Amino acid sequence: MPASESPAYVGVAQRKQAQLSASIPAEWRLPAHLIPAGMLSPAESITDGPKKYERANVMEIPRTCGLLSSQELNITENYDVRGLVAEMAEGRLKAEEAVQAFCKRAAIAHQLTRCLTEPLFPRALQRARDLDEHLQRTGTPVGPLHGLPVSVKDTFCVEGVDSSIGLSALAFKPASANAPLVDLLQSLGAVVIAKTNIPQTLATLDSCNHLFGRTLNPLNRQWTAGGSTGGEGVLVAMHGSMVGFGTDIGGSIRVPAMCQGIYGFKPSQGRVPFGGQEGGQMAGKGRIALQAVAGPLARSVADLDAVMAEIVPRAELFGEDGIPGYWPSPSTISLSPPRNFTVGVLKTDGLVTPLPPITRILGEVANLLRRTPGVEVVDLPLPPVLPKCQALAGRLMSVDDGSNMLDLIEGMGEPLIPWLQGRMKRGKALHINQLAALQAQRAEVEKEMMKMWILSSSKHTRHIDAIICPIAPHPVPEMDRYNAVGYTSTFVLLDYPAGVVPVRPFGEKDLESGREMDAPVLGSWDKANRLLWNEKTVDRRVYLDSPLSVQVITPKQHDYDLLRAMEIVDRAVQGQSVNAKL
Amino acid sequence: MPASESPAYVGVAQRKQAQLSASIPAEWRLPAHLIPAGMLSPAESITDGPKKYERANVMEIPRTCGLLSSQELNITENYDVRGLVAEMAEGRLKAEEAVQAFCKRAAIAHQLTRCLTEPLFPRALQRARDLDEHLQRTGTPVGPLHGLPVSVKDTFCVEGVDSSIGLSALAFKPASANAPLVDLLQSLGAVVIAKTNIPQTLATLDSCNHLFGRTLNPLNRQWTAGGSTGGEGVLVAMHGSMVGFGTDIGGSIRVPAMCQGIYGFKPSQGRVPFGGQEGGQMAGKGRIALQAVAGPLARSVADLDAVMAEIVPRAELFGEDGIPGYWPSPSTISLSPPRNFTVGVLKTDGLVTPLPPITRILGEVANLLRRTPGVEVVDLPLPPVLPKCQALAGRLMSVDDGSNMLDLIEGMGEPLIPWLQGRMKRGKALHINQLAALQAQRAEVEKEMMKMWILSSSKHTRHIDAIICPIAPHPVPEMDRYNAVGYTSTFVLLDYPAGVVPVRPFGEKDLESGREMDAPVLGSWDKANRLLWNEKTVDRRVYLDSPLSVQVITPKQHDYDLLRAMEIVDRAVQGQSVNAKL
Repeated sequence: MPASESPAYVGVAQRKQAQLSASIPAEWRLPAHLIPAGMLSPAESITDGPKKYERANVMEIPRTCGLLSSQELNITENYDVRGLVAEMAEGRLKAEEAVQAFCKRAAIAHQLTRCLTEPLFPRALQRARDLDEHLQRTGTPVGPLHGLPVSVKDTFCVEGVDSSIGLSALAFKPASANAPLVDLLQSLGAVVIAKTNIPQTLATLDSCNHLFGRTLNPLNRQWTAGGSTGGEGVLVAMHGSMVGFGTDIGGSIRVPAMCQGIYGFKPSQGRVPFGGQEGGQMAGKGRIALQAVAGPLARSVADLDAVMAEIVPRAELFGEDGIPGYWPSPSTISLSPPRNFTVGVLKTDGLVTPLPPITRILGEVANLLRRTPGVEVVDLPLPPVLPKCQALAGRLMSVDDGSNMLDLIEGMGEPLIPWLQGRMKRGKALHINQLAALQAQRAEVEKEMMKMWILSSSKHTRHIDAIICPIAPHPVPEMDRYNAVGYTSTFVLLDYPAGVVPVRPFGEKDLESGREMDAPVLGSWDKANRLLWNEKTVDRRVYLDSPLSVQVITPKQHDYDLLRAMEIVDRAVQGQSVNAKL
Repeated sequence: MPASESPAYVGVAQRKQAQLSASIPAEWRLPAHLIPAGMLSPAESITDGPKKYERANVMEIPRTCGLLSSQELNITENYDVRGLVAEMAEGRLKAEEAVQAFCKRAAIAHQLTRCLTEPLFPRALQRARDLDEHLQRTGTPVGPLHGLPVSVKDTFCVEGVDSSIGLSALAFKPASANAPLVDLLQSLGAVVIAKTNIPQTLATLDSCNHLFGRTLNPLNRQWTAGGSTGGEGVLVAMHGSMVGFGTDIGGSIRVPAMCQGIYGFKPSQGRVPFGGQEGGQMAGKGRIALQAVAGPLARSVADLDAVMAEIVPRAELFGEDGIPGYWPSPSTISLSPPRNFTVGVLKTDGLVTPLPPITRILGEVANLLRRTPGVEVVDLPLPPVLPKCQALAGRLMSVDDGSNMLDLIEGMGEPLIPWLQGRMKRGKALHINQLAALQAQRAEVEKEMMKMWILSSSKHTRHIDAIICPIAPHPVPEMDRYNAVGYTSTFVLLDYPAGVVPVRPFGEKDLESGREMDAPVLGSWDKANRLLWNEKTVDRRVYLDSPLSVQVITPKQHDYDLLRAMEIVDRAVQGQSVNAKL
């Protein structure tokens, strides 16, 4: 087909890719021989499946490629958030030096995984120099996150930069103002060094689109990188950013965290300003249907804590969707009277039975918690309404006819990405009474689910402090094979804060070679899930070394309590002693 | 018209009125000569206007009628919430005695004002005896509100009792379960002694319907009692209940508080469980459009504090719509570092210019605050988007076609009450995209309104702690003449907590006889409002002795701060010294 007959998106994508490529300085470019084979072109990366890729783990390449100095490796590998900020705030490290190290490492990560959409390197370095100048002139840091290199999902608007969300129709239309979260981060002294890749429509769990191609999983290029905050998950995992900010409605923070083996935190509504994003949806949809939330991905619970402690109390000052937030300092916590911390174990959502390695990892974590002083562990019965949650959340995500997004895609002649083919079509908008009825059902479900937090026995009533459960009913799958988001979307439906804690890699023992699942099939979602385990439909060995993680949840709006619970789970997993007394 | 041809509602109303009448014991009945002339039949009370009534103030009748013993007068008049509960919890007063005194006084109030819908006297007395028995047996009170007599708006479900909301279609259909707020109150030890009257549709500001007739204002039977929580306002004002619970979407807690000269508190969402009510609307509407909230009416700020301090921290445990709540004890407050408390004065909503007495009372309160140590007072400029709020809230209240309510009314042949005639008709439900667009507009308005709380000058930025403004642009009007709810509905739209503090009665000086308003007319709402002041369209002397009040607001979800601000305003008004340092 002659170029003049190409669909409109093709030229835009070429220009966008050229712009992205040009934003990586020549001296930060990896020599070709260091990039594993199968780093396909953006266009090929969309349509070609996992078999086209080597099973390469590229996590070590930034360390071994020779582009980063030993000081740059030190800066990007040996600090947590509070430690790195302290170095800068106390004048031992220049913000410019830290930001440059992370920008460079982000550029390297991108060349190996296609994780970025908008590198913001020159402006980030200028901002870092301004911070250094401020500190030198006044003797005080700009804010509690002075100089911290962070990154944001492509959806968040940054003034003067595209929020194309991978759609050619939105490319080369720079935002006129920062998102409130970006303003808030900058007021704290953080430096946004890049925006990161997402899937077409933002509604799939592979970060793949026609502007930027497919983001690859740095642990194994055959696995999905997860989505929709996939680029962010990869960048943070590769130490290309200290903390990344994404959004989550069906699992879009937690799924990438699971896929890269890092930590993700999906807050309740109002904790992190959400506004000022491009979503390709009709404005106001979240308020009448299901509201997505913004939250961080990081490499430790301490790093999640470090940013949430500064963001949550300020959310109401920056975003119209923020509410007053309470995030106690450690000294406050120690003043609380001691009592046991009770963790509930929720083994299934009753809709999709977790595959054996998922059940096993949950059991392992429960056992580690049982051995933790001050922690009590109880198995929870299946709440009768839980199996309804995935469908209810799904219906609330598609209350309109989807034409906003499809107009953007079809108007430019973009094909749907593989996962969306056959799944995405124009629907029929609900009548307002049907919408209200869905929300009424949701209220009923919320009310029923309140009972999950209370354990009644003949002698006493015990409150559950936190619950552990799967993130997905399967391990990190090959690209385009993610199944069922009920384990994540349910907690957006219920507005429970939910976090991801990585546990250990998938090992030989988890293969259970030759063994079939004996649990009866529950329905179509469950049946589809078995395809990810049945030896006729998958080579289980593809899961070897993939990160196995657990999800931790607390009741609605108990975000600080979630952080504390994730800390308890994390230390139990890592075999560290922890005083879990509250 | 022969009885057989009466509309269906007539017979139901007769049975309902007979039921209500029968629930008042003979020995609690007022002699006829004590009831002022013009206590029309329920049916007449709806259609006959203010001229049919004497200008009688019936507030003293419970004290002078001879039905209440001196101990019953003491119980119902000389305690605040904490004081009365302490008497019972410490065994000096039986709950049965307190509950009986309030039931009796409620019955008397009802005979003078028609404020009740469902007296719950026998079950309240039984509950009180159970509380006494528990205290005697265990030595400890049932809860922090042990024995407190309270009442609730007719909308709140009480097991085994109608929630007819004044509609014959819903009469004689007893609720199968308590509303979560009722359960919460009972768990605290409070005793619900009655449910109270409301307007047909709940959407007007006169509490008037065909089942129960019109609730009269005990201060002056020509004035509206306010609505939709009108019966509650009257009952609390007449000491027939210690605290009343109502709901507010357009002003339904604050307007009755203003009309009776008592205190009302409209919380932010999630502070007080709202579920388990009959609203006559399609279920789930609040979640997609504008969400009403539940809150208390009482005779002092201290009484509002006493109940909110117990309800707010427990809201999340009882209602699926509750969120974790923080309500510090006084000791916590005194630990806070001292700083000035800044009160902003918002003189107009830019849509309806307040009539002169409303402007005057606001100015008086501002001056009293200026003289309060630790308080700074600043005049606020009109936020540019504020004039849009009334219409936006109004549109969000009527997103559906209204057929749920009209089917209930028309199916029984009920006529519309006077205020609704010409105003209420079947509409056209919005398309879901129009609804989303309204919510997007609301988000924009919320964002703009955030600026109201920050005062920028060349030297510094100051935060406003609380704002005082009118509740209505006019004094307490004659029945069926209330105009414009923008001053109240705006703060539901914005989810700002908002309270009512009574100031002083309307006096001769407020008449400004012969003086016209000189402010230019702003539009149709403003024009209509002038009819309540123009000497050609109203006899201003009707306002003499009516309560003049102010509204106090704080930012979204700052409910405890509102209580504190109301306390500062109240003490300034009452000329009490107060340390307003926070």
